[in-house]
Amino acid sequence: MKSYREELWFETKTRRAYLNITPQVEAAVAKSGVIEGFVLVNAMHITASVYINDDERGLLQDYDEFLERLAPHEGRYRHNDTGEDNGDAHLKRQVMGREVVVAITEGKLDFGPWEQIFYGEFDGRRRKRVLVKVIGA
Amino acid sequence: MKSYREELWFETKTRRAYLNITPQVEAAVAKSGVIEGFVLVNAMHITASVYINDDERGLLQDYDEFLERLAPHEGRYRHNDTGEDNGDAHLKRQVMGREVVVAITEGKLDFGPWEQIFYGEFDGRRRKRVLVKVIGA
Amino acid sequence: MKSYREELWFETKTRRAYLNITPQVEAAVAKSGVIEGFVLVNAMHITASVYINDDERGLLQDYDEFLERLAPHEGRYRHNDTGEDNGDAHLKRQVMGREVVVAITEGKLDFGPWEQIFYGEFDGRRRKRVLVKVIGA
Repeated sequence: MKSYREELWFETKTRRAYLNITPQVEAAVAKSGVIEGFVLVNAMHITASVYINDDERGLLQDYDEFLERLAPHEGRYRHNDTGEDNGDAHLKRQVMGREVVVAITEGKLDFGPWEQIFYGEFDGRRRKRVLVKVIGA
Repeated sequence: MKSYREELWFETKTRRAYLNITPQVEAAVAKSGVIEGFVLVNAMHITASVYINDDERGLLQDYDEFLERLAPHEGRYRHNDTGEDNGDAHLKRQVMGREVVVAITEGKLDFGPWEQIFYGEFDGRRRKRVLVKVIGA
Repeated sequence: MKSYREELWFETKTRRAYLNITPQVEAAVAKSGVIEGFVLVNAMHITASVYINDDERGLLQDYDEFLERLAPHEGRYRHNDTGEDNGDAHLKRQVMGREVVVAITEGKLDFGPWEQIFYGEFDGRRRKRVLVKVIGA
């Protein structure tokens, strides 16, 4: 069994951002040399998500408005009593998820026609990481 | 390491539908010959989900009403400015999730007493796919 | 390829509870002998979640209030027409997710600084299980 590990680093300029990271994951899979296996891509921070959906600008705004409606940044969160201001980000991340697992087939991400991997940042403006871990043969 | 790949195809008659696909996944695991490993089951389309829960008719209606309350089909979505009418489906799929990973133990899905794998369709009436990918030994 | 399986059992005193199970998962990974691989941790019941986030008391209350707001226990659920009273728990579990997959690197959980694995119980006061399954080399 082969394995490969890589970290992707991000520092978004805005509090919330949605970045297409498919090319970086494809590059990591190529470097791994794995032909058949799985790649796990997960946020290493608990106020960010990795998810798969469409790279369409209107949709990214729809997600952002949806998440603000469910868990507004200006809402009241007990977590913020600790001095943090990111209670909302911990909730938003749960709705969108922490991780994706993608099949690798014939050395490539085994994707449907519109699948793209996104990093969803809900408490940005500082350096944060995503883990890419590949296992297979 | 062994691996196995299969696509399941669906075309639902209604816009939204919830289909128990456990038998198809069990059959794929049997065909894989994997005794100990993981099976990944994911929607290959970004307006559909694969999730695990109970096969109980009332619960499926509860999910449908819950998702319509969170992201109504008739709501206003910027994504629909592209000419699509499935903005809601992209949001519903995020709440329910894209994929499940299930352990394989002694050649079978390693499930609790009520776990069943569902395909959740939120923009149906056309042919769409689910990927089943098995890895293990 | 190595594999290892273990069940964790819980019986919470309250209907809803949030338990940090990271030490139990770490112990299972150590017992597995896997140095590079994946660990899958999933609820075996369909009214409970396994998720990763911060172990901060205020945040756990925020999650609980958020989930009660989205799917109140006293709400109207068709599932409860079967004689159950846990319709809300099936919805809460979908929002928080069934499972996590965590990378194992150099024999340890490959975690960011604040990641902790939680068992989220939404219909407790009876014995329920979590599956830990490790694969790798």
